Amino acid sequence: MKQSNTFIPTLRELPADAEIKSHQLLLRAGFIRQVASGIYSYLPLGKKVLQKIENIVREEMEQIGAVELLMPALQPAELWQESGRWFSYGPDLMRMNDRHDRPFALGPTHEEVITSLIRDEIKSYKRLPLTLFQIQTKFRDEKRPRYGLLRGREFVMKDAYSFHTSKESLDETYEKMVQAYTNIFTRLGLNFRAVIADSGSIGGKDTHEFMVLSEIGEDTIAYSDASDYAANIEMAEVVTQYEKRDETLKDLQKVNTGEHKTIEEVVNFLQISPEDTIKSLLFNVDGENVLVLVRGDHEVNDVKVKNLLNASIVELASPEQTEEVFGCKIGNIGPVGVNHVKIIADHAVKYVVNGVCGANEAEQHYVNVNPDRDFTVEQYADLRFIKEGDPSPDGKGKIVFAKGIEVGHVFKLGTRYSEAMNAVFLDENGRSQTMIMGCYGIGISRLITAVAEQMADEKGLVWPMSIAPYHVHVIIVNTKDETQWKQGNMIYETLKKQRYEVLLDDRHERAGVKFADSDLFGIPVRIVVGKKINEGIVELKIRKTGETLEIPVDQLQEELDKLLSQLKGSKGQ
Amino acid sequence: MKQSNTFIPTLRELPADAEIKSHQLLLRAGFIRQVASGIYSYLPLGKKVLQKIENIVREEMEQIGAVELLMPALQPAELWQESGRWFSYGPDLMRMNDRHDRPFALGPTHEEVITSLIRDEIKSYKRLPLTLFQIQTKFRDEKRPRYGLLRGREFVMKDAYSFHTSKESLDETYEKMVQAYTNIFTRLGLNFRAVIADSGSIGGKDTHEFMVLSEIGEDTIAYSDASDYAANIEMAEVVTQYEKRDETLKDLQKVNTGEHKTIEEVVNFLQISPEDTIKSLLFNVDGENVLVLVRGDHEVNDVKVKNLLNASIVELASPEQTEEVFGCKIGNIGPVGVNHVKIIADHAVKYVVNGVCGANEAEQHYVNVNPDRDFTVEQYADLRFIKEGDPSPDGKGKIVFAKGIEVGHVFKLGTRYSEAMNAVFLDENGRSQTMIMGCYGIGISRLITAVAEQMADEKGLVWPMSIAPYHVHVIIVNTKDETQWKQGNMIYETLKKQRYEVLLDDRHERAGVKFADSDLFGIPVRIVVGKKINEGIVELKIRKTGETLEIPVDQLQEELDKLLSQLKGSKGQ
Repeated sequence: MKQSNTFIPTLRELPADAEIKSHQLLLRAGFIRQVASGIYSYLPLGKKVLQKIENIVREEMEQIGAVELLMPALQPAELWQESGRWFSYGPDLMRMNDRHDRPFALGPTHEEVITSLIRDEIKSYKRLPLTLFQIQTKFRDEKRPRYGLLRGREFVMKDAYSFHTSKESLDETYEKMVQAYTNIFTRLGLNFRAVIADSGSIGGKDTHEFMVLSEIGEDTIAYSDASDYAANIEMAEVVTQYEKRDETLKDLQKVNTGEHKTIEEVVNFLQISPEDTIKSLLFNVDGENVLVLVRGDHEVNDVKVKNLLNASIVELASPEQTEEVFGCKIGNIGPVGVNHVKIIADHAVKYVVNGVCGANEAEQHYVNVNPDRDFTVEQYADLRFIKEGDPSPDGKGKIVFAKGIEVGHVFKLGTRYSEAMNAVFLDENGRSQTMIMGCYGIGISRLITAVAEQMADEKGLVWPMSIAPYHVHVIIVNTKDETQWKQGNMIYETLKKQRYEVLLDDRHERAGVKFADSDLFGIPVRIVVGKKINEGIVELKIRKTGETLEIPVDQLQEELDKLLSQLKGSKGQ
Repeated sequence: MKQSNTFIPTLRELPADAEIKSHQLLLRAGFIRQVASGIYSYLPLGKKVLQKIENIVREEMEQIGAVELLMPALQPAELWQESGRWFSYGPDLMRMNDRHDRPFALGPTHEEVITSLIRDEIKSYKRLPLTLFQIQTKFRDEKRPRYGLLRGREFVMKDAYSFHTSKESLDETYEKMVQAYTNIFTRLGLNFRAVIADSGSIGGKDTHEFMVLSEIGEDTIAYSDASDYAANIEMAEVVTQYEKRDETLKDLQKVNTGEHKTIEEVVNFLQISPEDTIKSLLFNVDGENVLVLVRGDHEVNDVKVKNLLNASIVELASPEQTEEVFGCKIGNIGPVGVNHVKIIADHAVKYVVNGVCGANEAEQHYVNVNPDRDFTVEQYADLRFIKEGDPSPDGKGKIVFAKGIEVGHVFKLGTRYSEAMNAVFLDENGRSQTMIMGCYGIGISRLITAVAEQMADEKGLVWPMSIAPYHVHVIIVNTKDETQWKQGNMIYETLKKQRYEVLLDDRHERAGVKFADSDLFGIPVRIVVGKKINEGIVELKIRKTGETLEIPVDQLQEELDKLLSQLKGSKGQ
């Protein structure tokens, strides 16, 4: 493509309102333009990247036997009423009435439409399992759209849905899907983790989020520095082996700690370390009072409390509620002498020796507290948040934290939708059974931001070969120089015939403008046709490394073949 | 793809509510399913056809230098207010408010969005001309959605827009676009015509509709039986050479025709032929009274009246208005003695000899009327509808009529949007000029219906190779027969490796079901692996012609190569 024939409006200045690097660069390099808040046009370069990502996703989906279809954006409200989400989804669901005043939703996701389709068409176990996917424009009325394509109101998703006769069959498809996602994000050259995520009531290991590591991410990931273990911080299991300090148990003793209530205050006042204290927090668990104990240097992870007690709602009790139950301020509560409230504790608590905790009296704490001697715990379990430096749960390496951008999600839905919408099949014995489902999403347009954010440098975007809008950028330095013009155009035509995807800068612009634009675009290889063309030499530059080579024109193709196959071969190329 | 792994729900019965062949078959063959009125899911086979059409359109657009982008479906109302269409578009425009109560339209077309984009980004003649296109889901709230994908409320369009500094530049792009459209519809194997259409005030030759000939079409096309001339019936020029009957002019004479008023009644009463009468109709043309004369066997074409008089609104006067102007009922009005109303006449009127017309008196007609002797015509022009049998305006052949489905439209917009939205550029002399625009649409999803309607037979769909969901359908007749099963699977795997697109019917169904389904799908070539496989023979069947061949397995690939390249080579394959 000749730049004189296409549309790549670049910006010199930093766009207002674009807070993050990728958003700024995608605007400056002319890949996207905003039409309304959270709503963008993909200009020709952006559209090319989008389409290449789509094709990679399509290939990998087909590779695992998923079949493509296309469902509509407009979804009748009746379907959402059947699943119950018409009421529960909230204002993020874009709604409208048609000319006959019938209500519709603009689909943010398609569980309802596909469940109704499969319910109507599949009656027998013989037609299952089945995995269907689509690549489609979705709508979600985000309260605060931001970061360009990262959190938009109109965006492109790949969404897949699988239907099964058994949990084992779902597990199998789930594993294939995890592998396909891994392939996709690897082909995009991303530094990512498949992260164990919270699936709510379905169970701990039934959902993974694929997170691209990035400081602009909104979620914290705990991952191993020595393996591929990764989890959302609230899902990371703590496997630390604690040991008791070798110290004689002393007698329990009450001390006046005055106004000192927080762990920090008490620790400073008593001149001890936080590891020697026991933190007590009252929770409402499905309406019941539960006292949760963790070591003073740890934080209670309420998702773990919820999962342990198989509860629906876990909420920290208010100070007033706590005072009502314990007869003292929250800073002075503790487990000693408590028998009217269920007590559970994190494993670490068991190993505290001669510790400190509240004494359930104003201005009073106990010292020399020893668990199982001075109070009874109904159950010890893993109830705290993991910390950096903790051992990785898979036994390999230590935990480090990072921020992540969610780019994919695999989820075992179970019978959430098939039950509500009556998607049943007849099994081998002619009995009616509810279908078991999985759903699997990838944020296609969001991936543009993720790749840009992770790979761009201070000069502009940097694309891997796999999704670069073009492979090669040929620049004619001085279009008024006849040799440069002729040779530049010839190189362009020759490379195009070799099926390279080539962009030719044939604009009558200053060299500085051209080089700056080229850096912004981030095309992997640049060929500069300048003065040296008179000696038969062009310059070849690799965008990512900045490495340059001078190549005789007659060896150009050979060198380029070599270089591009190297770039394609390397991760994310 | 194995049928056991994909999703092709076929129907035996005729679906209710599907009036036309293509709609019935697309439902029965499992290509589409309705989600709501005018809103469909494309199931796997339908999605494949859709995507192949998209790819052909994309290739031909790129071939003429059009550049792809993707604009959003959600369009802020402000843009439509700028162009004025927020008010004029009516209830077909789907409208909604976002969570902040800001109004949006769901785009049925993108003139506003692209004009605003180009206005903001292009300032200089140096960046023009430019042609951009997108392939995208569009929305239009049709009052009566029908015929399946033909007139839907959510549909896929290719829309292109071009921007120019001069009319000559627009003409050039327009011609290229006409050629690209011709290529596209030819590759789809369609019997179509590029039809001269009414462009309203812009002028007669500035818009073409591409019409697929089909009896379900909503428009009448007049086309030549001997050339590629075609026009919407109201746009077809009449070039008939009339001759005067060789007869002495007789004296004008008034006769009492009693209650006989219509041409038919008067002709029967006076025992003459319609060619000998002059039909007089009063029109309001931009508020002025104009009497339009055509021969009794002809019909007034008001588009031609409008174009001749360069008018905005042309309306037939009501009987009451006519009576007020002429002092008699409409059946008795005529041009003789009229000097208070402008008179224009179709060319044929000039050649009437001793004719008949109304006498502007109750129950009276004139006989022996001779134009230019008995009344004066301000202007003779082509003012009638063309008729079957008239000579083609290009001088080649005779006109025949057909019904057509509009599948494409090319249109010279001129400055309609650029003026309203202030899209200007600086010319070579630094002067600000308004951009000149063209727009060009193709109904991608509608083309599925057009192809299906034109090619299907009584057994099912018939696809050309170019957009068939698969090239080859391999059927294992009896899946319980080990040889058939093994050989069928082997043939499937072998052909897949040769990059054929193959569908394998590996279902445990009766042979009759499989053959009926296969006929419904319309895949160009069928390979039947049945009993004769024991002798190393398979049956090869061409869907379109029904022709069958018995082929030894070891010659299968060779035969198939030959056959498919023949099918690809023929028109629309």
